[in-house]
Amino acid sequence: MGRDVQDPQAGQPVGSHGHQPPGLQKWLFHVPRAPEVMLTRERYPVRRLPFSVVSGEDLAAFERIVPGRVITDPEVLEASNVDWLRTVRGSSVLLLRPRTTEEVSHILRHCHERNLAVNPQGGNTGMVGGSVPVFDEVILSTALMNQVISFHDMSGTLVCQAGCVLEDLSRHVEERGFVMPLDLGAKGSCHIGGNVATNAGGLRFLRYGSLHGTVLGLEAVLADGTVLNCLSTLRKDNTGYDLKQLFIGSEGTLGVITAVSILCPPKPRAVSVAFLGCPGFSEVLQTFSTCKGLLGEILSAYEFMDAECMWLVTRHLHLASPVQESPFYVLIETSGSRAGHDAEKLNDFLEHVLSSGLVTDGTVATDHMKVKALWALRERISEALSRDGYVYKYDLSLPTERLYDLVTDLRARLGPRAKHVVGYGHLGDGNLHLNVTSEAFSPSVLGTLEPYVYEWTAEQRGSVSAEHGLGFKKRGVLGYSKPPEALRLMQQLKALLDPKGILNPYKTLPAQA
Amino acid sequence: MGRDVQDPQAGQPVGSHGHQPPGLQKWLFHVPRAPEVMLTRERYPVRRLPFSVVSGEDLAAFERIVPGRVITDPEVLEASNVDWLRTVRGSSVLLLRPRTTEEVSHILRHCHERNLAVNPQGGNTGMVGGSVPVFDEVILSTALMNQVISFHDMSGTLVCQAGCVLEDLSRHVEERGFVMPLDLGAKGSCHIGGNVATNAGGLRFLRYGSLHGTVLGLEAVLADGTVLNCLSTLRKDNTGYDLKQLFIGSEGTLGVITAVSILCPPKPRAVSVAFLGCPGFSEVLQTFSTCKGLLGEILSAYEFMDAECMWLVTRHLHLASPVQESPFYVLIETSGSRAGHDAEKLNDFLEHVLSSGLVTDGTVATDHMKVKALWALRERISEALSRDGYVYKYDLSLPTERLYDLVTDLRARLGPRAKHVVGYGHLGDGNLHLNVTSEAFSPSVLGTLEPYVYEWTAEQRGSVSAEHGLGFKKRGVLGYSKPPEALRLMQQLKALLDPKGILNPYKTLPAQA
Repeated sequence: MGRDVQDPQAGQPVGSHGHQPPGLQKWLFHVPRAPEVMLTRERYPVRRLPFSVVSGEDLAAFERIVPGRVITDPEVLEASNVDWLRTVRGSSVLLLRPRTTEEVSHILRHCHERNLAVNPQGGNTGMVGGSVPVFDEVILSTALMNQVISFHDMSGTLVCQAGCVLEDLSRHVEERGFVMPLDLGAKGSCHIGGNVATNAGGLRFLRYGSLHGTVLGLEAVLADGTVLNCLSTLRKDNTGYDLKQLFIGSEGTLGVITAVSILCPPKPRAVSVAFLGCPGFSEVLQTFSTCKGLLGEILSAYEFMDAECMWLVTRHLHLASPVQESPFYVLIETSGSRAGHDAEKLNDFLEHVLSSGLVTDGTVATDHMKVKALWALRERISEALSRDGYVYKYDLSLPTERLYDLVTDLRARLGPRAKHVVGYGHLGDGNLHLNVTSEAFSPSVLGTLEPYVYEWTAEQRGSVSAEHGLGFKKRGVLGYSKPPEALRLMQQLKALLDPKGILNPYKTLPAQA
Repeated sequence: MGRDVQDPQAGQPVGSHGHQPPGLQKWLFHVPRAPEVMLTRERYPVRRLPFSVVSGEDLAAFERIVPGRVITDPEVLEASNVDWLRTVRGSSVLLLRPRTTEEVSHILRHCHERNLAVNPQGGNTGMVGGSVPVFDEVILSTALMNQVISFHDMSGTLVCQAGCVLEDLSRHVEERGFVMPLDLGAKGSCHIGGNVATNAGGLRFLRYGSLHGTVLGLEAVLADGTVLNCLSTLRKDNTGYDLKQLFIGSEGTLGVITAVSILCPPKPRAVSVAFLGCPGFSEVLQTFSTCKGLLGEILSAYEFMDAECMWLVTRHLHLASPVQESPFYVLIETSGSRAGHDAEKLNDFLEHVLSSGLVTDGTVATDHMKVKALWALRERISEALSRDGYVYKYDLSLPTERLYDLVTDLRARLGPRAKHVVGYGHLGDGNLHLNVTSEAFSPSVLGTLEPYVYEWTAEQRGSVSAEHGLGFKKRGVLGYSKPPEALRLMQQLKALLDPKGILNPYKTLPAQA
């Protein structure tokens, strides 16, 4: 969560194995090649699959389906071809902006018949290159599908189109006494459809759980244009297979999500944040156990960061640490319905951890601005890292008690070749953000990190992508977290739902031999 | 939830369209036909599909796979052929009791090669005839797969074999300071694998949500014997499609669940129950809104029942109503980490609803025995119904505000032909248990109820099976809650995962034309 910031020049240099399809040239010359982001097909060893190329007749057909919303202007396309981390770049010549599910259906039916590849795009805030085209896929944007369909004041059920921006939805439901069950650093631009398509985690995961539990229904358009309406608003429905689950986290490769129904919890009346120093990682873990017991149902976040993270945010961003220097820091958030009760629980917890030595120093905030300032220490780590040099980034799920071992291990393995090896993240969810910095990109450092990090994670039965998904950039490492039988079934599901493979090709699943 | 009790003689009389496969006779004569439960193939218009019949060679092969655990004794088979409601009855001649996933894999590989149909069976506590054979399917019992594999004290993650009994698991995790995220009336005999296979709802759903959110991983054996190991213990894992979701709620038709990993919440330190009288259904709804606001994070159940339910439990079971006679009653449970805080919240809520007239009378219990006594009023309704006459039962999800309209509507439509038309259930989850009693089974009453109830539910975009699933008895009504496109995709998924259709045939999906 939060947005990681990467060096736009980053990435291993790879030769171009891209295949230029015949006829693409006539469109490509429109696209200004900003030198700062290399084309994906030039940087990565990826081959264009034999999809058709957009023709004048296709443009005319699309103009009939979404009149006035067929974009070929290279300057407008620029923003949709490049991911926001500025690490991958497609060469699409066509952006479509449907407003309705029916329009999405007609577009996909046409693409399916014509064998045109499609890149569904929400707010384009993904971390793994899943939301931009790799070659010349038609970009299907949900930007104009931004209507709230209904909100139910009793149950807190929100139904909306896929292109609604998360922050707009938050405002909408907060005015009615509810909150969205997810919150992300990218909330100002990410679309709820993209959140669901990537199974976004984020800041409220510890409290409200996965989208697999909070999404009540969705509507998706399948590769051939079939509209699959599973837009139920029911909490319970055991009639047949729960098809909506297929699309949650499938990154637009099995269907295009056009609307979602999501259960919103009541808005907490009181929020507090405690920022604490711990003498060791073992104490970070024990503090977590203790706070689960004493804070119980009001615990809403348990984040940790190590001393090097604090060094980076104080050094590069000039933030001030609110507590004494410690090997580890913990940020605990409580959200409850009654401030007095919450404060009592939090105070009792703090007394316990301070008197037992689990925590050596701490501060608590309930004021909104001070709460934000404490969160900034945790949320701005990745910004600080980007100012430290070249950054190697990993987003891993690991068994909580082994979570920090990998950081210590890598520090020893890398020695002085690394400037910093840091660990931070959503400890409460077992999610480690492992980051390494060096002065500049170093093949030797990368060679020490990979595949070692993935193998280490696999040995722990961890996940090589906890919350960011696989998209384009990580699809090759899926096998570290899933057995061959699972991969095979995933390929079969893809073949069943999208036999021509037109939906977000080159994403999620490894390239087939 | 809780166990419904049905008249064993109940059910519409239908002629036998059952098809007796050649060679079945030699096994059938072993099965004692207890006159009180009619064979499913004689009661329902269902045709045996052309599966093979168990041969002596098959028995020998199974004896090699699970030595000493190949059961052909008709008396032992009796309990596995009949559902616990005693409404459906298969004629299987073979019950297998594997202990390990590997054994399940070998059994299924053999069945797949031999085209033998398989009925996976857990605790056999299902409500819709999903857990017993329809014809002579081989019964694959998880009864001996009852080992806890691991429990993680920090995260509360339980990993266990599919045949663990829910109550045993509850005890196991409660001794360690956690609770299972689900609780059911059938907990003394249901298996966790069966719970997951049917996506069981139950008493804790309002608080801890669906198994789609709390099940972290599972292991399943596919129809051809392939072991699919998705037994992750991670809270977050976005590597590829979330395959485990396919098996949650698929009633053993896509694979046999052999182990599950499930996230257990911390055990609440304090539990209170309030039993309240409301003057109307509108007040039941407003009381729900109010308690969501004032009880917030400690609310763990919101159940309702109407005056006729109270009449039935007081009349037939001689329970005493703890509050004044009212048109509606509400049971509210709180579970929290601090008794004093919880009591304050509950008192403030009660003052509010009593002073505003939403509630006219009420009582509160924190003592374990008194809590149980209040729960009994709600949990024993279906027992009381069974003593009232023939019972027509429906388990529906409906938009909360329309939930009771169907009860009122049916009361008017049925008039004096019905003894009682009652509504009760998990209001907090939008789940209505609608029950109608008459002196004896009446085709006229049934004709008034069906398809009317299903059509009414479909018009509200409700679910014709909220938590019980479809199994054998309700597979025909799936179309009322899911569009044809969804049905088609379900059929395709079934064909992909089980091309020969050997896994729990005649269940979940409608018979294909």
